[in-house]
Amino acid sequence: MRRQLLSVEEYVAGIRGGDRVVLGKAITLIESSREEHHVLAEQVLTQLSADVPDNSRSTIRIAITGAPGAGKSTLIEALGMWLVEQGKKVAVLAIDPTSAVTQGSILGDKTRMEKLSVADRAFIRPSPAGNTLGGVAQKTRETILVTEAAGFEVVLVETVGVGQSETEARRMCDLFILVLLPGAGDELQGIKRGIVEMADILVVNKADGDRIQPAAMAKAHYRNAIHLLPPHPGGWTPLVLTASASEQTGIDTIWKTVAEYQKITTQSGYWEQNRREQSRFWLHETLSAGLRKMFYEHPLINAEIQSLEPEVLAGRISPFSAARRILEQFKSTFLKK
Amino acid sequence: MRRQLLSVEEYVAGIRGGDRVVLGKAITLIESSREEHHVLAEQVLTQLSADVPDNSRSTIRIAITGAPGAGKSTLIEALGMWLVEQGKKVAVLAIDPTSAVTQGSILGDKTRMEKLSVADRAFIRPSPAGNTLGGVAQKTRETILVTEAAGFEVVLVETVGVGQSETEARRMCDLFILVLLPGAGDELQGIKRGIVEMADILVVNKADGDRIQPAAMAKAHYRNAIHLLPPHPGGWTPLVLTASASEQTGIDTIWKTVAEYQKITTQSGYWEQNRREQSRFWLHETLSAGLRKMFYEHPLINAEIQSLEPEVLAGRISPFSAARRILEQFKSTFLKK
Repeated sequence: MRRQLLSVEEYVAGIRGGDRVVLGKAITLIESSREEHHVLAEQVLTQLSADVPDNSRSTIRIAITGAPGAGKSTLIEALGMWLVEQGKKVAVLAIDPTSAVTQGSILGDKTRMEKLSVADRAFIRPSPAGNTLGGVAQKTRETILVTEAAGFEVVLVETVGVGQSETEARRMCDLFILVLLPGAGDELQGIKRGIVEMADILVVNKADGDRIQPAAMAKAHYRNAIHLLPPHPGGWTPLVLTASASEQTGIDTIWKTVAEYQKITTQSGYWEQNRREQSRFWLHETLSAGLRKMFYEHPLINAEIQSLEPEVLAGRISPFSAARRILEQFKSTFLKK
Repeated sequence: MRRQLLSVEEYVAGIRGGDRVVLGKAITLIESSREEHHVLAEQVLTQLSADVPDNSRSTIRIAITGAPGAGKSTLIEALGMWLVEQGKKVAVLAIDPTSAVTQGSILGDKTRMEKLSVADRAFIRPSPAGNTLGGVAQKTRETILVTEAAGFEVVLVETVGVGQSETEARRMCDLFILVLLPGAGDELQGIKRGIVEMADILVVNKADGDRIQPAAMAKAHYRNAIHLLPPHPGGWTPLVLTASASEQTGIDTIWKTVAEYQKITTQSGYWEQNRREQSRFWLHETLSAGLRKMFYEHPLINAEIQSLEPEVLAGRISPFSAARRILEQFKSTFLKK
């Protein structure tokens, strides 16, 4: 790895020039667990943001999730190919907290998106490995930034549909698409509670052949369900669409709806406000995580916790007293006056 | 307030002697926002825990929540009076994050529990005020500890049913009772998603007169619903009961079920394990909160955040780079080597 490292200027120039090999190497840096790679990646990110602020790029970040078997990947490929044919540059990323465990990362097998993976204007990257969802999510968020800097205007973030990763994806995207199967209700589809509420656009996929009728029923069902939800903060009303990735129907309508979403929420000010709130969230989230790491990894604090925790668990000292004692010690011993 | 302060020894002796006036004053200390009161309260708590470890007291902590109008307070009063008549000492506390805003705290009006509020062996305390749910929850957790030290064996923690406060209540109690109305399903009952899953015992209240039939239907409905849930970690199977607080029926069965819960989960080791995990949770939660407070309230860090946050929101620096920069500065400027 070391001998493959480039200089900050080489990374920045390569990314700006849309060089996919350099982009891939920059993402490898972001995903690395080595401190020196972090430092380098950060310099690259800072340089890229300094010249062209992230918010000034007119990009669209879309989180896409769905029930197992709903044909998420096929739909992403169909949507991606359609966008590429319209002249757009499209990146597909993934957040999969299970990939570190199972090694069976979504998107790991690029052959699942046969056409898109060889398309000139497309860039596909599997989920980074990581011990914590927070860490995986942060890497994906940084990857979005470099990918956009390399000129990719549409970023699709695929998640596995297990619940928590959708919340993370939503915190880094402009809108959220949920892919559904024709027919069955939530529980039967294996969709976790709360996911339908997060969706800005619902797509009943596989609406072809014998499934046109069940797809229409699913559409009606979800249309009723979303009417019961609290109003969308951006003045948007979530829509239910039908599509068939295999027959290429409804793909253009999905994109038309995304554009409509962007138009309405831009007018209401929500689009910009959402991006700002997301940046604020990631700033404070990273601060908190870093602070905890610094604290818990300090050998003396660690020793103090090791010695007090058993007392707390045995009920001989209240958790609040123990916490205050440790914090006092941290303050007086490690903080400069 | 100042002239009403007692010495640590006076608080400890009064609480041990079951003096309700002293207990009340100790809780006022816990709820106070003044630093000197915190210090005193902590000394009292530490003293009480040192002599008789919290875990060695055979107490039962029960979280009780329910749909608006389900008759939660009446049921708590009926259960409390029944326990008092069995010779038990009962405390009723509350977690209500809305009380600070509305001033309309649950339990604020003691007349809602007319008989229990004047019973010798009962102690009722309204929800503490607080700006954050976390703060309110911590005060309630500490109040449980002093109340138990004063000899109250059963602690009932009432919550408002808005979702987050139930999670907090569950984190400080041994079991969770959900009070339901006869007839209607979840959505109609105004029960937030996820609350049914948290319940160890479900009580369909108001099962009297014309409502006996709808109560039986609700019981059957919830019994089906809970069969679909993942298994309880303590080897317990959640039960659905019917009761009428106004006609005093089913109250003894509720208590018998609580005792059965305690027996089964004690045998499986879950009861003790749950208390230990709760103490561990509160230790680390308090550490994290204290650490964040220390960090954000530091004038120089605060100034640094104030200056970098607008850059982050404008997209000129990535939130991750900004966070790392602030953390680096904290490390080098404020931490001793």
